[in-house]
Order: sequence, then C-alpha cells, then structure tokens
Amino acid sequence: MTTNHPNSLHVRRMGVDTQSELVAFMRKDSGVCRAEGFTAHTRIRVSNGQKSIIVTLYQVDVELLDEAEIGLSDSAWRQLSLKEGDSVTVAHSEHVDSLSLVRHKVFGNQLDQSAFDAIIGDIVAGRYSDIHLSSFITACTAGGLDQSEITALTNAMINTGQRLDWGEQTVADKHCVGGLSGNRTTPIIVAIAATCGLTIPKTSSRAITSPSGTADTMETLAPVDLDVPAMRRVVEGEGGCIVWGGAMALSPSDDLLIRVERALEIDSKGQLVASVLSKKVAAGSTHVVLDLPVGPAAKIRSDEAAKSLADSLRATASALDLAVTVVCTDGSHPVGHGIGPALEARDVIAVLNNAPNAPTDLRDRALLLTGTLLEAVGCAQKDQGIAMAAETLKSGNAWAKFQAICTAQGGMREPPHSSFSHPVLAKQSGRLANIDNRHLAKVAKLAGAPDAKAAGVELHAKVGDRVDAKQPLYTVHAETRGELDYSLAYAKATPDIVALADT
Amino acid sequence: MTTNHPNSLHVRRMGVDTQSELVAFMRKDSGVCRAEGFTAHTRIRVSNGQKSIIVTLYQVDVELLDEAEIGLSDSAWRQLSLKEGDSVTVAHSEHVDSLSLVRHKVFGNQLDQSAFDAIIGDIVAGRYSDIHLSSFITACTAGGLDQSEITALTNAMINTGQRLDWGEQTVADKHCVGGLSGNRTTPIIVAIAATCGLTIPKTSSRAITSPSGTADTMETLAPVDLDVPAMRRVVEGEGGCIVWGGAMALSPSDDLLIRVERALEIDSKGQLVASVLSKKVAAGSTHVVLDLPVGPAAKIRSDEAAKSLADSLRATASALDLAVTVVCTDGSHPVGHGIGPALEARDVIAVLNNAPNAPTDLRDRALLLTGTLLEAVGCAQKDQGIAMAAETLKSGNAWAKFQAICTAQGGMREPPHSSFSHPVLAKQSGRLANIDNRHLAKVAKLAGAPDAKAAGVELHAKVGDRVDAKQPLYTVHAETRGELDYSLAYAKATPDIVALADT
Repeated sequence: MTTNHPNSLHVRRMGVDTQSELVAFMRKDSGVCRAEGFTAHTRIRVSNGQKSIIVTLYQVDVELLDEAEIGLSDSAWRQLSLKEGDSVTVAHSEHVDSLSLVRHKVFGNQLDQSAFDAIIGDIVAGRYSDIHLSSFITACTAGGLDQSEITALTNAMINTGQRLDWGEQTVADKHCVGGLSGNRTTPIIVAIAATCGLTIPKTSSRAITSPSGTADTMETLAPVDLDVPAMRRVVEGEGGCIVWGGAMALSPSDDLLIRVERALEIDSKGQLVASVLSKKVAAGSTHVVLDLPVGPAAKIRSDEAAKSLADSLRATASALDLAVTVVCTDGSHPVGHGIGPALEARDVIAVLNNAPNAPTDLRDRALLLTGTLLEAVGCAQKDQGIAMAAETLKSGNAWAKFQAICTAQGGMREPPHSSFSHPVLAKQSGRLANIDNRHLAKVAKLAGAPDAKAAGVELHAKVGDRVDAKQPLYTVHAETRGELDYSLAYAKATPDIVALADT
Repeated sequence: MTTNHPNSLHVRRMGVDTQSELVAFMRKDSGVCRAEGFTAHTRIRVSNGQKSIIVTLYQVDVELLDEAEIGLSDSAWRQLSLKEGDSVTVAHSEHVDSLSLVRHKVFGNQLDQSAFDAIIGDIVAGRYSDIHLSSFITACTAGGLDQSEITALTNAMINTGQRLDWGEQTVADKHCVGGLSGNRTTPIIVAIAATCGLTIPKTSSRAITSPSGTADTMETLAPVDLDVPAMRRVVEGEGGCIVWGGAMALSPSDDLLIRVERALEIDSKGQLVASVLSKKVAAGSTHVVLDLPVGPAAKIRSDEAAKSLADSLRATASALDLAVTVVCTDGSHPVGHGIGPALEARDVIAVLNNAPNAPTDLRDRALLLTGTLLEAVGCAQKDQGIAMAAETLKSGNAWAKFQAICTAQGGMREPPHSSFSHPVLAKQSGRLANIDNRHLAKVAKLAGAPDAKAAGVELHAKVGDRVDAKQPLYTVHAETRGELDYSLAYAKATPDIVALADT
C-alpha cells in the first residue's frame, strides 16, 4: 500500500448515493488540500494502487471527517472496490485529452471513429464530470451528428462494454423506442418466437422514470437478475429468456449519457440511434424489430419524425451488419389494462393463456411485432408472420414456453396483489375521449410503482368506450395506506387525467 | 413555520462546501423520499416560508442524518439564510420554463432579450444545475451569439444584479481581459487618474486560477472588503478606490457561468464580452479602457483574434451607451518582478514612489493605459495622455493619492515578507529566451499564493537579459517549509520554466 505517500489518506464510505457521479469529500483544512490547492469542485485522481478514478471534490468542515481521511460516494467506493481500512493517494487529475475533441465538436467540426473512441472510453472510465457530459451531449445535438458520426458513436459505445456471442447465425431481438404505459409486449413476443424456434435472448431494463420497465414487470413472474452464464443456460434450454440487462455492462456509456440527457430533456436522433443499436449489437443480436410508438404525447410525435428516425436506424444498423425492421405503432393511449409491475404482468399472463378478458390491444401489438420478426428472420413467409404468431399463441404452446422460461430463470411466481386500492369514478356520463399518459403514469408512481410491485393503476375503460356517471374509470392500487392517499390526492387535484366528452 | 406539513424536515448544516452549486442530502429510506419518488440527482424545491431554492438531491444512509432531517450544503444554507432548528418543506421542483429556451438555442435558433432575461433570471435564482449551465454555455458557443444576442445577454446579466450610480457624468474604469502574471497596473492607474481629477471607483476580483488577483494584491496594502456605502465614502473623498467587487452582486450570473466555463475550458467571444461589459455597466462606469494582452501563451493568441474581440466589445459597448477604448498589449511574458500578492504589491509601490528599481515594463504599461483613459474622458488632449500620466506619477502626487486612498479604505499596511525562500539558479550561461507563464504561475501557487499572501515567485531577470551560470533566475517565497519544498520540487521537475539560449 501507499500509506507513506504524502498524499495518502484513509478511506471512509460516506454513505452518499450520487448515482453514477463520482464524488469525494475532504477536510478543507487538510494538509493535502492546502498543499495541492484543492478547492470545492476540483477534479482529483484517487488511486488505490490497482486502479484510479477521477472524482469531483467537495470540501467539508471538521465534524464529518478526520484530517487524514477521504470520504467517498457509494459510486466511487464501488469503482475502486474499497473496504474500510484501505488507503488511497490523491493528486490533481491530469488533463483529460479527449475534452479537446469535445471542444472540436462544440466548434462545429466533425468527429471520426478515433475521436468517439477516445471520448466514450474516458466517459466509461469516469473521467468526465456532469459538466463535461452535458457539454458533449449538447454539442452533438447542436452541431448534429451525420450518418458516419452516428455509426462511429455507436461503434465506440459497443466497444467499451461487454459483447455477447450466442454462436448462432440468427439471434432475434425486439425493442420499443420511447415508453408507452402498459406496452408490455416483450414477454409475449419472446414466448411465441421461442416456441417457433427462434433464439431470442432478451435483456430488458428497469424503469427509470416510468411506473414499470419490462424487467420490473417480469420480476413479478420470475427472477430476472441472472448473470451471463445463467442467462446462457436458459437460452440453451428454451431458446429465449427475459432478464435484466443492467448488470451486464452492455454499452455502459449509454447509462451514463441517458441520466444527463434526461436532465436536459434532450434526446437527439443521433444519440437515440446509438443508444438503441449499441445495446442490441452488444447483446449479440442479428435481427431486431423496433417498435416506434407515434402520438402527440409520445416520444415520437409525428409521422415525419418517425420516418427520419427510422431512416437513421436503418442506415446505422446496415453499417453495423444488423438487420432491423421498424414498425410504427399507435402511441396515443396506454396499452392493456394495468400500469405498474404486477398489474402489467397480469395483462401479459391473460394474453399468453388466451383468457377471455385479455386486453386485445396488447395482444394485437404483440402479434404484429412477433409476426414481423418471424418474417424478418425467414421463419415465416411474407405476410404470414402474424398468422403464425396468432396460431402459436392460440395453441397454448407459447404459454407453455413462457412457463418453461420462468422455471429455467429460477421459478415462476404469482404477481403480488395490492393491500390497498380505491376506484376513481366518472363524474358524469360520456364517451372516454382521452387518457393523459403522463399524468396517469404519475398517479401510478405516487402509488409506489415500480418499487412497490403491486402498486399502480388499473384502467376499466379504453378510449372510445361509453362510460356512465359514477362508473369506475380506474382503480389505484398501493401497498401502503399513505401512498394510496397521496396518489388519490394527486389524481383528485389533476383534472381530466381521463377525459370524458359529451355523447 | 411549516412543521405540520407532511413534507416538513428539520434542517442540518452539513458543513459541505460545493461552491455555488446547491446540494441537499436526505435519507434514502425517509418517508418523504419514498412518497415523492425522490432519487439521487432529483431536482427538488426547498422552501423556508420566505424563500425557496432548487437543489440537487443526494441520498444518504442512516448514519449521517435522522429520517426527519434534510442536510444542506453551505451554499444552500446561505441562500435560505437558515439557522439550526429551522424547518423547511420539500417538493419536486416545478418545471423550469426557461430550459425550453436553452433547448431552442441548442437547436440553432436565435434568442431575444426576453429569452436571455428568463434564462439569466433562473440561473441567478439557482434554478439551473451544473448540467443545465453547461448546456447553456455549450449551446451559446456551438451556435454562436450574434451581435444582438451578445447585447441581450449582457443586458440580462446587468439587470439581474445590483447597479451602482455615482451621480457623475463621467465614471472611469479599466479592465484587463485575460490574465498575465504580474500585470498589476490597476492600483497605479487609479492613483494617477484620481490625482488628475477622474472619478474611478474600481472594483476588482480575487484570483480564481491565478497566483493573485488585483484584490488579493491590494489587500496586502489596505482593506478591500468594503460594502457599497463604505466604497462610496472613499470615492467621494479621494475620487477613486480599489476594492473587492465580489460581494456586491454586480452581474452575479457571471460568477456562476465562469465556474462552468473554466471546467469546460470554453471562453467564447460572446460570453467573454458579456462577462466583461456587464460588470462594468453594473459598476456604474461610463468610460472604460480595456487591456487586451496578446501572445502565444495568453488568452488572446493572435492579432486576428484580438481584432475580432475588440470589434465585438466596441459594438456591444456602443449598444449599452458605454465608451470603451481597446488597447492591445504584449502578452508574451510576465510583467514586473513579483508573482504573488505581496510580491506584486511591492512592484506597485516601487512604481508609485518612483523607486530606482521599479519595473519599467509595469510602469510603461500603466502609463499607456492611464494616458489612454485620460484622453478618452477628455481630461488630456489627443496624444498628450501618456505625458500627463507620467508627469503626475513623477511629481509624487499619485503616490500621495494612493496613500490617501489606502487610509480611506481603512489604513495602509506593509505587505508581508516570506518566512522561507530559495533561489533557482541558471544551469549555464546564456540569454533569457522565454518564460513559461503557465508553469511559473503554478510554481507560485504551489508555494501558497494567493492564500499565503507573502508566497510566490520573484523574477531576477527579464526576457532578453544575459544570465551567467549559477546566477539566480528567480526566488521562490513561501510561508511554510512544506510549501517551499513542494514548489521547488515541481520547479526542478519541470524543465525550461525559464529557458536560456546560447549566446
């Protein structure tokens, strides 16, 4: 160890969660701060002998730390794999060379493959602060990325992470670009496609800002937290899986960039394409169907924007030897009945076992996407894919396959039921004219979704349905009384989450 | 107070210095975090009944805070004027509307006065995170600001802060754009100009990244930490002052933007112009001389860049009814003998009292700028300004005026002497060919400047001088043995900070 080094400090886990941002805390009056001229927001390099990271420094008063200690955020603690009692050395961070390439882009120049490799490499190594990440994202949006830059960025994002290899000619995959509440087609698609003989090793994400991600929903039905060898065993046995991809380091820069893009509410075409396709290539996919929901309140708001995005997705995928088929779908309204992990899982199960109350919109979307995928990989003749998918679903074989996948992932389970629920009633009679996706998602989140698995919203009517006064429009489900009250208070205070029109 | 509010929390000053960034800490498992869905990096509004701010949330484990507590950074604590025992309420920050205007600029559109007013107003109110500030700066640089936008940004920066009014037709001022070590002309210019009858209420800054700012140097000679009424009394009595402007809230957004610009190493023309001129107009100046040092290692590297900057400074000043005269000077080498607060102060005193060892380069630069200012305000005939300034200096009247100003500011004092010093010797004979400004500044900073007032570097030879082997090139001064050793080790390890050429 390095305890005799003049800039050696004992580590203290501060117990501060800063997400992926790397932060250190040092005493303002410490000898090291004074000698090095460290001030708050100085970028410093922290090394433990094996590995070093660059962190943003905050300075603290005497109460929080000893003079010979350095406090580290959870993120920094994990990156250095520290344990209590360890020592680290600190120094001014050397210049991060790739920042000059970011400035190059800021000033309107084109970046090549080696430039994106250097930038993304430094981002994954934790050498960029939030200020630098924001500048990179803004510069790429302001200057725009041309097709060669989008391809180079995507390649750089693939190459800085793990890349799975399934040893198969054809590996199928699907992805939905831009969230739509309840649009939980993935488990249905995987079950049907695997029944039809496709290899479809699906990695999904957890919710970031939505009431549920596919991994959250699937987790109410089976374990999803599998490592790569376990995932491989499931796929070898059943042809498909639905697991959480978050711990697999597929395109790890994507997670770092998305957090800042969300804060900026910037999601430019080039970054969206690189984000989606880098994850697919890293996951080892060869044929991907992309669902693009288009609607006034969706991420993609017009047919024109959808066409431009689809063109760029196709051009980039072609450069990466990835076959993609883009399907534009209706993104106006929530899909299915449930919003929230367990409520969505029940919709999925209803479709898979051909229950009479199964939401037809969810089933039809899943069949469209599966049919497209079956045609794309050559498993179905042109225009025969949907029929093949529908037949596979109707036969009960897809339901059996899904149960087998759940068993292989560690055991199928029953989605939990909520402890508290309350209906929201129609104030008058009328036709259901509109559902405000964003505010309804907030109702579900305030009720506890996605952390509270049983929490969320259950819709009792779809757009176009005729509703009578005092008939329930939707039911709020929660696991605690407080969260139920909190969510209902918000629902009451927000007019027209579900809007009725006179008939 | 609001202690019965469900989202009410007791405040705790965390003792964490985050500079101007506003940060709060809450327990991850607290009822408020769970009910509101707050996660690390959520932007939340914190209100104390009178005032509210938007902060970035970090989440902590059980050790650091009670569940009913919220910890606040020093910056947030100050903004809300809190005291221990106070309570605050927290909520999701409402949408910051002006961020859509930032995105407007990101996507290449022009912003008008009302847009800049909204953005700068939100920045000063603390509603922008570092991510947002970085995006705004990057977008303005990438898209560029046209002349109307530069003027609008400058106006917005002026209008969000205090604006001084001296009740005079003519208020003189000077400013140096881009640091040059030892270029401490301000105290000399103020003394001569005030002797000639000008009103010159000079506000200066402390060092941010350099070994000394004018306020740091002046502070070794007299108090500089005056409030506006005290400053006004000095100016009414003596015609001029040299005080620290940092606490006066002149163009307060400038300080917030500069920190992020420095992290990005971006200093675009439009932002530089707005930064300089907004401070001058806010300080109540009517006639300003701007010193633009040009040189290969200076902020302005070419005559072409200087011309473009000067044109934009003149055009913007004209729109603001401010008379500016731009003087391009040699920015190749350090000015004077000393680098560091007290060492520079001794150069200033030597020039003011006509000492035989006074650095002629510092005197000549001060006379050029003062002469230009005297002509600009009509106090001297064309081409007679320098002679008038030189005569005023030579007469001893400027020295008397400077002493009077120091007395009025709270009492003149003697700059401190260092406790430890060591010379760096020439390794061989030769002509002094070059001085590396940036590395020499680092030697001064490692020795303790600017916090250690007596610390820094004292040059014994200027570029072009003939130097013998073992003759001292410069002496490092420090207040502690450790800092002296640290600085000398860096000087030894860095070749050619002072470069000699064979003669």
